[in-house]
Amino acid sequence: MTVHDDVTTRPRNATLKDVAKLAGVSVATASKALNGKDNVHPDTRRRVVEAAERISFTPNQLARAILGKQTGTVGLLTHDLEGRFSIPILMGAEDAAGAGQMSVFLCDARGDSIREQYHLKALLSRRIDGLIVVGGQTDPRPSIGRSLPVPVVYAYAPSLDPADVSVVPDNTHGGMLAAQHLISTGRRRIAHISGDVEYLAARERANGVQRALADAGLPLAGGEVLYGSWSESWGRSAALTLLDRDPQIDAIVCGSDLIARGVLDSLRDRGVDVPRDVAVIGFDNWEVLVQGSRPALTSIDMNFEALGRRAAERLIEAIAGRETPGVETLDCRLVVRGSTSYGR
Amino acid sequence: MTVHDDVTTRPRNATLKDVAKLAGVSVATASKALNGKDNVHPDTRRRVVEAAERISFTPNQLARAILGKQTGTVGLLTHDLEGRFSIPILMGAEDAAGAGQMSVFLCDARGDSIREQYHLKALLSRRIDGLIVVGGQTDPRPSIGRSLPVPVVYAYAPSLDPADVSVVPDNTHGGMLAAQHLISTGRRRIAHISGDVEYLAARERANGVQRALADAGLPLAGGEVLYGSWSESWGRSAALTLLDRDPQIDAIVCGSDLIARGVLDSLRDRGVDVPRDVAVIGFDNWEVLVQGSRPALTSIDMNFEALGRRAAERLIEAIAGRETPGVETLDCRLVVRGSTSYGR
Repeated sequence: MTVHDDVTTRPRNATLKDVAKLAGVSVATASKALNGKDNVHPDTRRRVVEAAERISFTPNQLARAILGKQTGTVGLLTHDLEGRFSIPILMGAEDAAGAGQMSVFLCDARGDSIREQYHLKALLSRRIDGLIVVGGQTDPRPSIGRSLPVPVVYAYAPSLDPADVSVVPDNTHGGMLAAQHLISTGRRRIAHISGDVEYLAARERANGVQRALADAGLPLAGGEVLYGSWSESWGRSAALTLLDRDPQIDAIVCGSDLIARGVLDSLRDRGVDVPRDVAVIGFDNWEVLVQGSRPALTSIDMNFEALGRRAAERLIEAIAGRETPGVETLDCRLVVRGSTSYGR
Repeated sequence: MTVHDDVTTRPRNATLKDVAKLAGVSVATASKALNGKDNVHPDTRRRVVEAAERISFTPNQLARAILGKQTGTVGLLTHDLEGRFSIPILMGAEDAAGAGQMSVFLCDARGDSIREQYHLKALLSRRIDGLIVVGGQTDPRPSIGRSLPVPVVYAYAPSLDPADVSVVPDNTHGGMLAAQHLISTGRRRIAHISGDVEYLAARERANGVQRALADAGLPLAGGEVLYGSWSESWGRSAALTLLDRDPQIDAIVCGSDLIARGVLDSLRDRGVDVPRDVAVIGFDNWEVLVQGSRPALTSIDMNFEALGRRAAERLIEAIAGRETPGVETLDCRLVVRGSTSYGR
């Protein structure tokens, strides 16, 4: 996507001049329109943005035009006590406009709304062009307000205000992916152990699992979703419960990798072979948990980097005056390892 | 430490006026001297700083005086692919000047020096007051240079330039703490399994373990440190090697929690009871690994929050013109759980 003006042998990419010509405005006006900050009539801005899209003025180029010659800087206001999702989301956001085109400043409010206001003030005083707000978990969160001088995009946790722009992982899709993978590898008695039912993510993942099973005409093994806590010890005890209820189960979808680690422990203790007798799949694809288990753990990845990238793209669009309110969901990704597959 | 001027019943805290009086300068000069940015003679600055210290003008107050009425903002340039240490170091740095006194903007250069330069430029263009550089691992790293317009403090990984200010965890002390804990609970045949010997941290931790053993007149069980990789699978195979070499070992210090998890697995497979037969201790105190293991894992904590707090304190001092070059090491902390202690 990078433009190389000095390499004449490559197909010429669209320029801001091309956009201006097509929109019937001056280059300065096109730049202002895409920049989104100056006094440009909304109709003119729409015309310029449409022209940019029509001739595939790429996101990188768009970002550069919007961010101008200066370093574009975006704030990322997160609520994270572990660093599990913030750092990958930050990386994705940084890369959205092409390497080295945009700086993202991360501040951590740790679930505290006073701290959030404080960081917000600091970021705004440092002339950020836009803000990405990353929730502490996937449940919807209050809007940070519509009166900020810069556009805001919510990532991971959606805003409760439907007028805001949110980008979140599709947990239902993740649950479906997990169950479909097991079904496609011949499993028929599939159970589901998950964490705290109060978490929207837990319920959505369970819905996805049950939908995939229903589509295949299969019942949920064990009779119901076993909700509990997001811990190894819950995974261990729930697996024992399942084995007692239905010794014939041949697969378990787990709501997190930690739960799956506990499940693997109990199956090993009972002499149940994974994946031969029972296949196990986790959720999170957390490197530190999935690589070293016996066997290595198949898991669902929420694609945090892609989520960060998409949030930043949406933010760049919003800076350009093209804000499309609502919640955008991004697909999860299946990562197959030994716990569901013999060859690995 | 917070000053409550409106609460007259509490002992009155030192004020900037007190500092000025003691130093024999005007309040304006005292402020300038502590601010470190204006044209104050070095001798005057030293006198003011000494006065501030003598009457316990606290770090919070000092920070406020230095950072002024505006939001103080510090850059934290990290190299982190996982978020394991950056987020806690960030939290500590934020809290150094008292809650809500300072904003820290984190940028992630991911081990790439070009990206580091780019983020550095972006941070400086946003008028940061100082910079904390966090290395990707504990090995010394090149200096970011002495020509920046703001002071720099290195955290986690020290700068190779002795003229820089660095704050790092004392890995040797961590290794000693681990071995001393085992010795104090009656263990006598203590072995050490660690990760990649190329890491300075691995060698320092091993030195600490061996120093504590030597102090107690004990040999290292297993005859040598078993270096390998920072993985569960290495922990598993190294533990089996150890049991074969010396079935009498009664404790294993592990160079990381991941290694310790593998060690626990192999001991369980061999029917060795933890902690009765063999005590196991990890390093990192990584919540996700130490809480759910069987039994829960005693570990050494590198106190990332304290490290971040100390780095920010040193940075505030440097902003005030009191830069003391060299490497400061911070003690690690022992967190006792079931893998070394019966009662837990």
